[in-house]
Amino acid sequence: TGLNPDPPLSKAPSPHTAPRAIYMDYNATTPLEPEVVEVVSEALRGAWGNPSSSYLPGVKARNIINKSRENVARMVGGRAEDIVFTSGGTEANSLVFHTAAKHFWESQRGAERERAENCRQNGTSVRPHFIISNVEHDSVRLTAENMQTEGRADVTCVAVSKVTGRVEVEDVVAALRPATCLISIMMANNETGVIMPIKEICQRVRSISTQRHVPRILLHTDAAQAIGKVRVDARDLGVDYLTIVGHKFYAPRIGALFVNGPGNSTPLYPMLFGGGQERNFRPGSYLEDRLLAVFGKERIRFNSHFPGSETLPNTCNVSIIGPGLQGRRVLSTCRRLLASVGAACHSDRGDRPSHILLSCGVPFEVASNALRISVGRGTSLKDVDLVVEDLRETARKLEEMN
Amino acid sequence: TGLNPDPPLSKAPSPHTAPRAIYMDYNATTPLEPEVVEVVSEALRGAWGNPSSSYLPGVKARNIINKSRENVARMVGGRAEDIVFTSGGTEANSLVFHTAAKHFWESQRGAERERAENCRQNGTSVRPHFIISNVEHDSVRLTAENMQTEGRADVTCVAVSKVTGRVEVEDVVAALRPATCLISIMMANNETGVIMPIKEICQRVRSISTQRHVPRILLHTDAAQAIGKVRVDARDLGVDYLTIVGHKFYAPRIGALFVNGPGNSTPLYPMLFGGGQERNFRPGSYLEDRLLAVFGKERIRFNSHFPGSETLPNTCNVSIIGPGLQGRRVLSTCRRLLASVGAACHSDRGDRPSHILLSCGVPFEVASNALRISVGRGTSLKDVDLVVEDLRETARKLEEMN
Repeated sequence: TGLNPDPPLSKAPSPHTAPRAIYMDYNATTPLEPEVVEVVSEALRGAWGNPSSSYLPGVKARNIINKSRENVARMVGGRAEDIVFTSGGTEANSLVFHTAAKHFWESQRGAERERAENCRQNGTSVRPHFIISNVEHDSVRLTAENMQTEGRADVTCVAVSKVTGRVEVEDVVAALRPATCLISIMMANNETGVIMPIKEICQRVRSISTQRHVPRILLHTDAAQAIGKVRVDARDLGVDYLTIVGHKFYAPRIGALFVNGPGNSTPLYPMLFGGGQERNFRPGSYLEDRLLAVFGKERIRFNSHFPGSETLPNTCNVSIIGPGLQGRRVLSTCRRLLASVGAACHSDRGDRPSHILLSCGVPFEVASNALRISVGRGTSLKDVDLVVEDLRETARKLEEMN
Repeated sequence: TGLNPDPPLSKAPSPHTAPRAIYMDYNATTPLEPEVVEVVSEALRGAWGNPSSSYLPGVKARNIINKSRENVARMVGGRAEDIVFTSGGTEANSLVFHTAAKHFWESQRGAERERAENCRQNGTSVRPHFIISNVEHDSVRLTAENMQTEGRADVTCVAVSKVTGRVEVEDVVAALRPATCLISIMMANNETGVIMPIKEICQRVRSISTQRHVPRILLHTDAAQAIGKVRVDARDLGVDYLTIVGHKFYAPRIGALFVNGPGNSTPLYPMLFGGGQERNFRPGSYLEDRLLAVFGKERIRFNSHFPGSETLPNTCNVSIIGPGLQGRRVLSTCRRLLASVGAACHSDRGDRPSHILLSCGVPFEVASNALRISVGRGTSLKDVDLVVEDLRETARKLEEMN
């Protein structure tokens, strides 16, 4: 399907080749900023030493890591010492769940140990209890499920509201148990872009939590999809942990975990990626306007529009209604648009529509036709026009084939 | 200490500045090959997509990963499907221990489950048992110790022979128990360079293992220090797992684990880094010759010389005997030599000599003066001469101060 973008965002169209491909799958991965590639290459050349060594290539590596830690911390309103670098978001999320389980068992020691031992002998469960949502990324869902399967934790999967597409605060509260030690709800969904009420959840849980003793309830949000698109301030949200994923905001494939250090009391509010974020607002809503104008209200379903819910400004999850217009089919027929039907990591699941959309109450036939179009700071309004035209032609072509 | 190497291996000496620093800590980290930096930068520019996506930047990423997997497999005599990429050696090693424990519990299921349950009720232990050596890298030692502390495994730490510096086959055999499910012995020690008899251990254990039923004993070697220096062929060694660490052989900080796939029967023997390896032979032994010539036999102790043991050709662990010549003091006084007193990850342990050397039977006073000098393929004989002269001047200076 004539894709020839290299780099995909800057190649000019040529009259003799296929049309310029237009990348709109920024929620899957962003291209790296040329400046970032330059910095990484420079570090590989001059800062290759072991950061704990005392000679120059090691000192350079240490300095770069320290500086990066400060930058990442500032980005999410934390302090350098709050940031733990990881190999990616999966490791960061996994770290949270394992920490929570261990924290639970440690808190059972001492005064509580005897009671726990009694429960064990009586056959009653004193396992740690986790609360997640039913639209979490696999790195959260599978981690929690695996710990449940192995008997190391109990997990409650709170369903998002089919009205708002959000995890509702009261549903989280209703899921609380005496052994609840971790609540992990993503900040924004990667397919619908719906923003979850993390701050409200944290406030409600904290107010309940103070009436209990052990274990303290830890609060985590995977902010992979939110950073660089909306304001993310870990301290304002009130979370204990927040997952950061580089390749979602023009950085390399690396992760970090914000861990709210004890005794931390001075919040910071600057946003490193504020510029890109505001520019993305316009292509996102312009795309929706154009789709409505071209296809008409009857043929377009926005799968991220839920009453009362905010969504990411760059994410347009849309279905073009009609027979033979399944998402994968549309994308493979499009001449320009590079997008996906959902989270890229699940692309091997064949023709089933996204379980995320189904969980949000999107009807099966609509979800089957879903396209997740996510724009980035390299996207122009002209790109949007070309993509909408591309979709129009594709829909016509596929309908003629039916 | 006038260090000005940028890149540290190619800067010409200037009459107006400090002498050119000479890097000889290749066992800690190797610099990246310029060609590798180029390939990485190119991939960051053009292959930034999600490898499971169908558009070009994703396809490119997938192709690069597949090609790399084949190259890494060929390097250790395996097949592409035997290679699992990890964030580093620590993750690879950790993966082995967790796999072994899980494999043990799975094997207890079914026919064995009832027996296990009886044991648990009787209070007798049916925990998985691991065998490691007392000179393993921390990523093995601490992983095993942590699992023991948490009651998830029993660990036997086999001491290396103070005669040979090696883990002796019979000592491993003597440590075997009915519940032994993993033996993890490094291929070559990172401080002494002593090569362990992995092939012999595997053969002996396999011959014993066939007389037992469950669990099968898994064999692992951390080959981080061996690859690129001596021939490493996982299938010839007979291991189930073999840890590979990129930044020990001029590649980026990434790890991989060789896992001997079931039904694998066609061994492959090429060596990707053969060229570098032979060139390193000469600077290594030349360094020892020069040290002996300059300091004399009475003042030099080679801490990796054990009768009957082979060592890595690039590693010279040496103590200059005399008061005030502690390793850290010598290194901080040297004007050219960049090396370490042991594994870089332990550099924060203050003035204690290496526990690895003490475990190998090196006397405390000798171990206190130890320098781990490890040469690489960028090291010239001229570099060796300059470093030996540097050490001679440093020793004189420090002795005058005493």
